[in-house]
Amino acid sequence: MKKSRLEAFSDGVLAIIITIMVLELRTPEGHEWSDLWAEWPKLLAYVISFAYVGIYWNNHHHLLYTAKRIDGKVMWANLHLLFWLSVLPFLTGWAGESGFAATPMTAYALDLLLCALAYSVLQRTLIRANQGKSPLAEAMGRDAKGKISPVAYIVAATLPFLGASGIVLSGVIIIAVAVMWFIPDPRIERVMEASEGLGE
Amino acid sequence: MKKSRLEAFSDGVLAIIITIMVLELRTPEGHEWSDLWAEWPKLLAYVISFAYVGIYWNNHHHLLYTAKRIDGKVMWANLHLLFWLSVLPFLTGWAGESGFAATPMTAYALDLLLCALAYSVLQRTLIRANQGKSPLAEAMGRDAKGKISPVAYIVAATLPFLGASGIVLSGVIIIAVAVMWFIPDPRIERVMEASEGLGE
Amino acid sequence: MKKSRLEAFSDGVLAIIITIMVLELRTPEGHEWSDLWAEWPKLLAYVISFAYVGIYWNNHHHLLYTAKRIDGKVMWANLHLLFWLSVLPFLTGWAGESGFAATPMTAYALDLLLCALAYSVLQRTLIRANQGKSPLAEAMGRDAKGKISPVAYIVAATLPFLGASGIVLSGVIIIAVAVMWFIPDPRIERVMEASEGLGE
Amino acid sequence: MKKSRLEAFSDGVLAIIITIMVLELRTPEGHEWSDLWAEWPKLLAYVISFAYVGIYWNNHHHLLYTAKRIDGKVMWANLHLLFWLSVLPFLTGWAGESGFAATPMTAYALDLLLCALAYSVLQRTLIRANQGKSPLAEAMGRDAKGKISPVAYIVAATLPFLGASGIVLSGVIIIAVAVMWFIPDPRIERVMEASEGLGE
Repeated sequence: MKKSRLEAFSDGVLAIIITIMVLELRTPEGHEWSDLWAEWPKLLAYVISFAYVGIYWNNHHHLLYTAKRIDGKVMWANLHLLFWLSVLPFLTGWAGESGFAATPMTAYALDLLLCALAYSVLQRTLIRANQGKSPLAEAMGRDAKGKISPVAYIVAATLPFLGASGIVLSGVIIIAVAVMWFIPDPRIERVMEASEGLGE
Repeated sequence: MKKSRLEAFSDGVLAIIITIMVLELRTPEGHEWSDLWAEWPKLLAYVISFAYVGIYWNNHHHLLYTAKRIDGKVMWANLHLLFWLSVLPFLTGWAGESGFAATPMTAYALDLLLCALAYSVLQRTLIRANQGKSPLAEAMGRDAKGKISPVAYIVAATLPFLGASGIVLSGVIIIAVAVMWFIPDPRIERVMEASEGLGE
Repeated sequence: MKKSRLEAFSDGVLAIIITIMVLELRTPEGHEWSDLWAEWPKLLAYVISFAYVGIYWNNHHHLLYTAKRIDGKVMWANLHLLFWLSVLPFLTGWAGESGFAATPMTAYALDLLLCALAYSVLQRTLIRANQGKSPLAEAMGRDAKGKISPVAYIVAATLPFLGASGIVLSGVIIIAVAVMWFIPDPRIERVMEASEGLGE
Repeated sequence: MKKSRLEAFSDGVLAIIITIMVLELRTPEGHEWSDLWAEWPKLLAYVISFAYVGIYWNNHHHLLYTAKRIDGKVMWANLHLLFWLSVLPFLTGWAGESGFAATPMTAYALDLLLCALAYSVLQRTLIRANQGKSPLAEAMGRDAKGKISPVAYIVAATLPFLGASGIVLSGVIIIAVAVMWFIPDPRIERVMEASEGLGE
């Protein structure tokens, strides 16, 4: 019961975050393709942030699927994750509007880092709340993606200070991490399969 | 379980998309009917987009109703559909604000096309995930509406370049497709009836 | 199953409509009470619209509670109601920003009328879909509030053309109808009690 | 059934309130850290409001968890609470944009007071609707936090009139109350544990 409401609230917040970003895309002034094209940094920032929120929703879904017990700490850890995700539309708007200037890019990468850390805190809080009862702990033990991502975000946050090519590289890294998360994780899928019927 | 959360998230996103478009309708400056009337392109664009998102919600509902299994691919196919639908408020605002200029009209029709394609990808992904277990595959086999729509959108995306009457015709086609979808599909209804109690 | 998703989507849209209106309240320029006070028409319009959407959510909840069957027509009737409710934030903003000018007041009252008509269409569609199986039909038969409201809205839409005092009277009527709906309906409560356990 | 829809609607509204506040954070004009830093009052106001809405969601969740019966009065008491919470984004924007001027600070503290009062009204309405059947009444009997908070808000609403240091102190109190709520309440946790399986 408690779990289902936590999911409902998280789904609501994530659904709003992912959709609200479109409001940062102001209508182009002119009516030509060039006017739409002039917005490309905002559109690209929107696509990347949409993918990231989608990935977080997907992972959040998987994470909670096998959990059986939710306590107060899990609730706050979850809210903490939602907080850093909620800042994403703001920084997406800044990065896009600035045409990917150095500081907004760094701020964006740092927020992704904070989201990743908040997610791993949530993960650990959930494992502690479900000690021994969840097939999750084991699967998470060798969580390569979760270990690579923060390092990649730190690099992506540093590179923009090295000039224009650093910014491009930073963007490439951010996109590459998103792509990495899109590729399904056979280990988790296996745990999911195995635990089907076990999750509430 | 997984399915219900996919539905909840989709419902959330669709509910936000359909409602957020009203924020593109800026309050008229003056206080006369003529000031409201001056906004007619934005109001008309709002009505059409509202109808389209409503149709997608309705079809999405039907589509998932008979599905029994959801996998990672279905999740991404679903998110992909939501992405193109999430762009609709932005293009609705552009089309409306421009008073239905040629390029915004084409962009709007192209987004409808991408939504339709994303929907049929989701359909196929769902059928594959539920191979043989779903009464859906069969019903979809002769999906006339789903085949006519993309063609209509391509025509609607091309016509605006032929001048003012092309734009009007493009609008008529877009509205006609929406009307076509409003008319209930006896085949689906029959499958629904038959599978009542079968859907989770 | 179908019903629960209809409710979820409606809850989502109504929750967004009721909350999104706060975005029409732009931050006052100054930092004094007088600056906040200068916004009183927008604040008052917000309170009234909040109450109306709350009433509709409440009634919608009651209406669907006893329904057992949902068909395609119910879905469209529901979407039709949500459409007219979704226009409310826009007209609330207009009425408030204009300091309750005649035309925006009339437009606001007309939208309330359209919501009321859409609601009664939904009611009848639901009764038809649940023919004979719902205790609702009977309770609705003598629906005094539902009959008074549209008449009141028509009067409220006409009065603003009679000048300033007409506008005040129109506002009083709109508030009075809201208050009338706040007072619980013993008949419905009784049906609810009786059908407890019958609703899905 | 009724309860779950009340929760769903409240979750929706709270999710939107918490997320919509990010829209008040306009994108900084410049692209330097100093431009982001210049927004610190808005960012701080955002963090505090996010924490408060999170606390209300958490408490709301706990409150309804043990409730078994919902009636019309509970619905209106709940909507009343949501109303004062819905005003928070507006006042957060005002307080932040003004750089924490005296009047916006007072208005913000007064809204927190109104939320707290509305919450205790909801609490009492729920207890009355579940008379004797809920383990809640007893746990609430010695609700120290619920008694301290309104007093603190009144102090926080008065202090800003004493000049700059009064404003700072007011802010400290508001943050302190939030922190107090973050600390888990062993009594409630115990009731929750005990009633696990009793809540619907």
